[in-house]
Amino acid sequence: MPPNLTASIPCEIKDLALADMGKRRMEWAFQTMPVLQSVRKHFITTQQFKNIRIAVCLHVTSETANLAVTLRDGGAQVVVCAADPLTVQDDAAACLVKDYGISVYAIRGAVRAAFCSHLTVSVEGRPHVVLDEGGELSARLHARPDAAEEAFGGTEGASISVQKLRAMAKEGALRYPVIAVNESVTSDLFDNRYGTGQSTLDGILRSTNLLLAGMNVVVAGYGRCGRGIALRAQGLGAKVIVTEVNPIRALEALMDGPRVMSMGEAARAGDVFITATGTKNAIAREHFEKFKNGAILCNAGRGNVEIDLETLGQMSSARRQPKEHVEEYALRDGRRIYVLGEGRPINLAVGEGHPAPAMDIALANQALSVEHLVKHGRALDRLVYSVPPEIDRQVAKMKLEAMSVNIDRMTLEQEYYAAGRSEAT
Amino acid sequence: MPPNLTASIPCEIKDLALADMGKRRMEWAFQTMPVLQSVRKHFITTQQFKNIRIAVCLHVTSETANLAVTLRDGGAQVVVCAADPLTVQDDAAACLVKDYGISVYAIRGAVRAAFCSHLTVSVEGRPHVVLDEGGELSARLHARPDAAEEAFGGTEGASISVQKLRAMAKEGALRYPVIAVNESVTSDLFDNRYGTGQSTLDGILRSTNLLLAGMNVVVAGYGRCGRGIALRAQGLGAKVIVTEVNPIRALEALMDGPRVMSMGEAARAGDVFITATGTKNAIAREHFEKFKNGAILCNAGRGNVEIDLETLGQMSSARRQPKEHVEEYALRDGRRIYVLGEGRPINLAVGEGHPAPAMDIALANQALSVEHLVKHGRALDRLVYSVPPEIDRQVAKMKLEAMSVNIDRMTLEQEYYAAGRSEAT
Amino acid sequence: MPPNLTASIPCEIKDLALADMGKRRMEWAFQTMPVLQSVRKHFITTQQFKNIRIAVCLHVTSETANLAVTLRDGGAQVVVCAADPLTVQDDAAACLVKDYGISVYAIRGAVRAAFCSHLTVSVEGRPHVVLDEGGELSARLHARPDAAEEAFGGTEGASISVQKLRAMAKEGALRYPVIAVNESVTSDLFDNRYGTGQSTLDGILRSTNLLLAGMNVVVAGYGRCGRGIALRAQGLGAKVIVTEVNPIRALEALMDGPRVMSMGEAARAGDVFITATGTKNAIAREHFEKFKNGAILCNAGRGNVEIDLETLGQMSSARRQPKEHVEEYALRDGRRIYVLGEGRPINLAVGEGHPAPAMDIALANQALSVEHLVKHGRALDRLVYSVPPEIDRQVAKMKLEAMSVNIDRMTLEQEYYAAGRSEAT
Amino acid sequence: MPPNLTASIPCEIKDLALADMGKRRMEWAFQTMPVLQSVRKHFITTQQFKNIRIAVCLHVTSETANLAVTLRDGGAQVVVCAADPLTVQDDAAACLVKDYGISVYAIRGAVRAAFCSHLTVSVEGRPHVVLDEGGELSARLHARPDAAEEAFGGTEGASISVQKLRAMAKEGALRYPVIAVNESVTSDLFDNRYGTGQSTLDGILRSTNLLLAGMNVVVAGYGRCGRGIALRAQGLGAKVIVTEVNPIRALEALMDGPRVMSMGEAARAGDVFITATGTKNAIAREHFEKFKNGAILCNAGRGNVEIDLETLGQMSSARRQPKEHVEEYALRDGRRIYVLGEGRPINLAVGEGHPAPAMDIALANQALSVEHLVKHGRALDRLVYSVPPEIDRQVAKMKLEAMSVNIDRMTLEQEYYAAGRSEAT
Repeated sequence: MPPNLTASIPCEIKDLALADMGKRRMEWAFQTMPVLQSVRKHFITTQQFKNIRIAVCLHVTSETANLAVTLRDGGAQVVVCAADPLTVQDDAAACLVKDYGISVYAIRGAVRAAFCSHLTVSVEGRPHVVLDEGGELSARLHARPDAAEEAFGGTEGASISVQKLRAMAKEGALRYPVIAVNESVTSDLFDNRYGTGQSTLDGILRSTNLLLAGMNVVVAGYGRCGRGIALRAQGLGAKVIVTEVNPIRALEALMDGPRVMSMGEAARAGDVFITATGTKNAIAREHFEKFKNGAILCNAGRGNVEIDLETLGQMSSARRQPKEHVEEYALRDGRRIYVLGEGRPINLAVGEGHPAPAMDIALANQALSVEHLVKHGRALDRLVYSVPPEIDRQVAKMKLEAMSVNIDRMTLEQEYYAAGRSEAT
Repeated sequence: MPPNLTASIPCEIKDLALADMGKRRMEWAFQTMPVLQSVRKHFITTQQFKNIRIAVCLHVTSETANLAVTLRDGGAQVVVCAADPLTVQDDAAACLVKDYGISVYAIRGAVRAAFCSHLTVSVEGRPHVVLDEGGELSARLHARPDAAEEAFGGTEGASISVQKLRAMAKEGALRYPVIAVNESVTSDLFDNRYGTGQSTLDGILRSTNLLLAGMNVVVAGYGRCGRGIALRAQGLGAKVIVTEVNPIRALEALMDGPRVMSMGEAARAGDVFITATGTKNAIAREHFEKFKNGAILCNAGRGNVEIDLETLGQMSSARRQPKEHVEEYALRDGRRIYVLGEGRPINLAVGEGHPAPAMDIALANQALSVEHLVKHGRALDRLVYSVPPEIDRQVAKMKLEAMSVNIDRMTLEQEYYAAGRSEAT
Repeated sequence: MPPNLTASIPCEIKDLALADMGKRRMEWAFQTMPVLQSVRKHFITTQQFKNIRIAVCLHVTSETANLAVTLRDGGAQVVVCAADPLTVQDDAAACLVKDYGISVYAIRGAVRAAFCSHLTVSVEGRPHVVLDEGGELSARLHARPDAAEEAFGGTEGASISVQKLRAMAKEGALRYPVIAVNESVTSDLFDNRYGTGQSTLDGILRSTNLLLAGMNVVVAGYGRCGRGIALRAQGLGAKVIVTEVNPIRALEALMDGPRVMSMGEAARAGDVFITATGTKNAIAREHFEKFKNGAILCNAGRGNVEIDLETLGQMSSARRQPKEHVEEYALRDGRRIYVLGEGRPINLAVGEGHPAPAMDIALANQALSVEHLVKHGRALDRLVYSVPPEIDRQVAKMKLEAMSVNIDRMTLEQEYYAAGRSEAT
Repeated sequence: MPPNLTASIPCEIKDLALADMGKRRMEWAFQTMPVLQSVRKHFITTQQFKNIRIAVCLHVTSETANLAVTLRDGGAQVVVCAADPLTVQDDAAACLVKDYGISVYAIRGAVRAAFCSHLTVSVEGRPHVVLDEGGELSARLHARPDAAEEAFGGTEGASISVQKLRAMAKEGALRYPVIAVNESVTSDLFDNRYGTGQSTLDGILRSTNLLLAGMNVVVAGYGRCGRGIALRAQGLGAKVIVTEVNPIRALEALMDGPRVMSMGEAARAGDVFITATGTKNAIAREHFEKFKNGAILCNAGRGNVEIDLETLGQMSSARRQPKEHVEEYALRDGRRIYVLGEGRPINLAVGEGHPAPAMDIALANQALSVEHLVKHGRALDRLVYSVPPEIDRQVAKMKLEAMSVNIDRMTLEQEYYAAGRSEAT
């Protein structure tokens, strides 16, 4: 791409000079994203996004940058803005502009006003399809009926925003059909069980350099994330204790290997605590009171609400940082409690977030959902949909192919049998 | 119980003298069934089955005999007959009569006529509630409107029969509401994942005395049974290979640890093959042709349809039995293939079936479903219902209590949070 | 083999008519003993045992019968007698006589006098090489200098007998070199870690039909057996607790996954107890006092000394057998404790002993040790030797080949490097 | 400590101002080193190092700095210098001087001349006891008989140096007894199996952000390191393939779970390769030729000799760094191969080296070995000794205590039994 072309790409980014580093990192990520690679090849062939304007409002990282390129390579006119200025990777943003001619409006740490103006530019591009994570872009688009006129489809990846969109749909306020891209079996497995499982433990090792073997690791919550975390903690040699409020999940945990107890009991036994409950104050004053000296706390679930840090602060006479990402709370009774990554999701706060191969599955679901919307969006009701099962299966198939794994196909006889028909008919 | 009383109990069983042995075996089983123990205590207290006639048509074993006693202890008049004459444990039948005064019509190996007459006696008892496994009793009850007049509830445990009942309900032909007791999260976990997982491997060890460590074990199908089997095979040191037709399940297997391949490829690599697909001929001619000399096959899924034994027989020049439960097929090309338990579910064919603690969960769900029907059956629509979630939770709670495991309860604050309400309100 | 030949084989066995069943069972076992198969092929080719008389005094089973045949096929004149009359499989004995023309003196349950006369016959055969398990034969041979005159080598498989032979060797009393066949890395792995690991759990399942998942299983002792048992118990879903007297082993257990505690603490927590300490009264009065009602005890270690059953009997008001291989002790305080297989090694008492593929490794070591003695025995000092490392490696190689596994060979460069030499030289 | 005192401590370090950071990091590490904490308490009480001069020549890190303080707190006069200028943590060095008044001669990245002069200063301190890692200090001490006059003991932690010292001892050239602190069961377990196992995988995740679940990970070598790595890779969901040259180890790997194949075969199957063979060119040209595009290589064993990077460079048309610690080799045939950490031990090259709790065990062995030398060194022969078993047991005991784990003690009866005596005597 000649430099003068670059100059003509409308954008607001940190520094175009970061493009080279961005390119290397995008390529590294892309190489570990075989499913998106397959999708890209398919899009390049079909060119079905010709004349389609797509606004991408996601965390701007080397992984999502590859999604933007994939859509562009299918013929789309893509505009990228940030779902959160704190997570923007400026080098990836620069590379999108310089090497792929994509308009990007995203600067790490941008102030609120700049962030909003970026969203506005995206909205004013009058997108046909909108990719959103957190609802900022779709909210603005719904506030500007003129700009939303041509929109015929959207995707949303944050479950809380999906809930809101469903409420809007009920009231007839949704302007275009939306696919909840988090509602996919494969995304769920890779995001939660495998992705969060590994990256949570990775975050703990990076921040503490502990030896997990032999330690008592308490996992609060045995949902999909908790399960993945328990599995990986056990895989690293830890003795896992699970706490739960749901007796069926608790029983499943117990039968799967971990010990199960109330948080009150676990508080005395645990060396490391990981919350994945999705609720507030899963670790609270009554537990702080029972912790061993040196207990280590972190969160792999929601925001930074799962550990009641405010109360912990009040119980402490001093705080300091013995190591990056580690905060020491010196309790008045002499015990010291350590909190990792300020109680924010540890895999994001300390590590590099989800491994690219986990993102691969989620972004491939997203890309194919866009294709689905382009094909069928205009005909769909203005509702919120889960990812269509055939896309989910397609993603699984592509991943298996990428791993050179063959599976069986049902014989006709078996299909009859499954359908409950006698063979005689 | 004085002998004269026994004499007055109407029954048709093999031999009352077996009662002592039956008692010992029932007690051993009951001791490993803590949830049913809890249910029994509860029933003894509430006596809510006073004047309720219950017909129990299940596999007559020491475990289900304990269910019959549990219902009787709640005040019910219980009549027991066999769901299958081949599975009757005559000693348990004798004990029910002699020690608990329960009418039993069940003899192991009874001919069809006797079996039917037993069902007829049960029907003619004009039961209020019917426990069925396989639909034989409910079919007869529906054929005798007079006898069914007072029936206000039933349970069914076989999924194929549940399907039929659903079809009947659709046509308005169902005479009373039925709870599909197999449709319970806890039953499903204990029957399929944990129960079948362990008992399948147990059956293989009993019949072969192999050393599983280091062997290539192929598990066909990665549904709940297949998962449990793969887990346990791995736990015994085997290298597990999974085959699947569903790409999402295949991918999950692959991420969970096993290798995944087509059965065509697995046929060359495997030492032991276990089918759990729920379909016909999962192992067929094209696979037999590729097996290593000495390959061992067994089934943990449906009936004896999963391995195409007819074709295997045709490919063989001779058959013999080198060991109990092991059949050797000498193929014309010189290879020998071994089939365990005639291709019937190996845990039933060779082992003792589900471990009592797994049955405990299923039977407790069943007992509490009866309670639910007695309380609410008359008010329910004549439809087929899954086990109510509160029963499922109750069973999980009782099991946790029996294992002395405490779990947490949500705080009010957490319930608000979960409900999405702000705390301020 | 014509019947008249059979008639001429000197022997004392139960019943020649059992030979057919013995043959089927020996063939089944042999098929899962690929290493002994390889050894046999090698012996058939080399015929190096021509004119060598070998007395085999082992547990007479379908596995050891295959060893006897293997030696015979190498040209040896083999006489078999029983190391223990209680473990004789009469059908295997019959098959050895009828189908292989081997003299066998072994009858299950033979009285002491018969047993001794069998040993005497073996001794009077003036063997060149003696295979012993427990030292009965070698003791008699040392008592009869005339019969021992031509003996130039022996093997012994029981560690306690090996100890005695070492003491004899020190005093110059050993009449021929002996190879301690239990002192082999591969035998040790397959006998103890893999063999005992699996067969112990198998024995527990067969006798109890418990569901191990979720249960607290206490393993006393973390030697090689204990490790194997802990591994397999964990593999079946149990929560494992290890007790130890050796802090280094205790620490290793702790880091490997199990919890570690004193038996005093474990007694309160455990559901199932398995001893593998090699010592007396690892479970004793102070522990019985703390057990939960329903606790299950068994032994996988030495004789029946590891659980103090005498004391348990004294603490009990009644005993009975609720199930085969299960003994219920009703304690005076109302609790019931269950002991499996009378406290004898559970894998032998309840199951079928070591899996044939584990025996394969041990017997192949034994066969190759005999070859070593035939080649070098006359030149060796009259001492006790471990299995020569090259035999151990050879057995491992043969097993790998049987499993179609290739491994690497060091390059010349790597050999130099390993030897610490610079490449320049 | 008053500032003027600091001024008077002879030292050569980077910057005293780093002491605060060093202190925080030393404290964090010390907190996860409970065994060294126990040793320190013991030393503080006994003060047995009064008037003893100790020269510590180790990698200067926050962990070893805690060892130096521990020795000082026992009364010793400690001088610290660096075993390797590349591994010096300048902040820990500063803290030792400023906060503990210990003389330190160590600067990260010091040139050879400076490094040597630091060693010389240490030698000239005429140490009584010498702690060495790599032999630099002891070599210099042996070259200066005057300075070595009062030395009565040493420790050495690098196995290659231990070998040299053994050779010297044979020739009578060793001037004082040396304890090979790497020859301890507990150090070996924590350094190799648990420490390297975890930190190797940690290094791979940090440098690549891969998702290990489902990947084929090839571990070359199944020694203690290889075992630990295989265990942890499996724990993170990888499918592990082991390569070996030793058939016994290969067989053990196979029985333990991994697949085993030759490196020639593994080269085609693997996604990630980890060498832990201890030898040269475990991955060489013939393997590079077979790798999949995108294969990732790293080393967890010796130096940077295990992967033949020179040849790989020659096969490549270009090299670049797509990510920190990742080097891409573009082969002439179009494939790209990635090498992590330049083929140096990945846990040191990318991660933070051994977790402090693993170092804890090694350094505690070292500290107690110093105590042993101070007590007995003058009476010992001038030979190389393994860590005395009672120290090994003591370290295990202290670690168990730190984890609040109780173990059993043999009863008198059991000790008799173990000794083979009858109880009657």
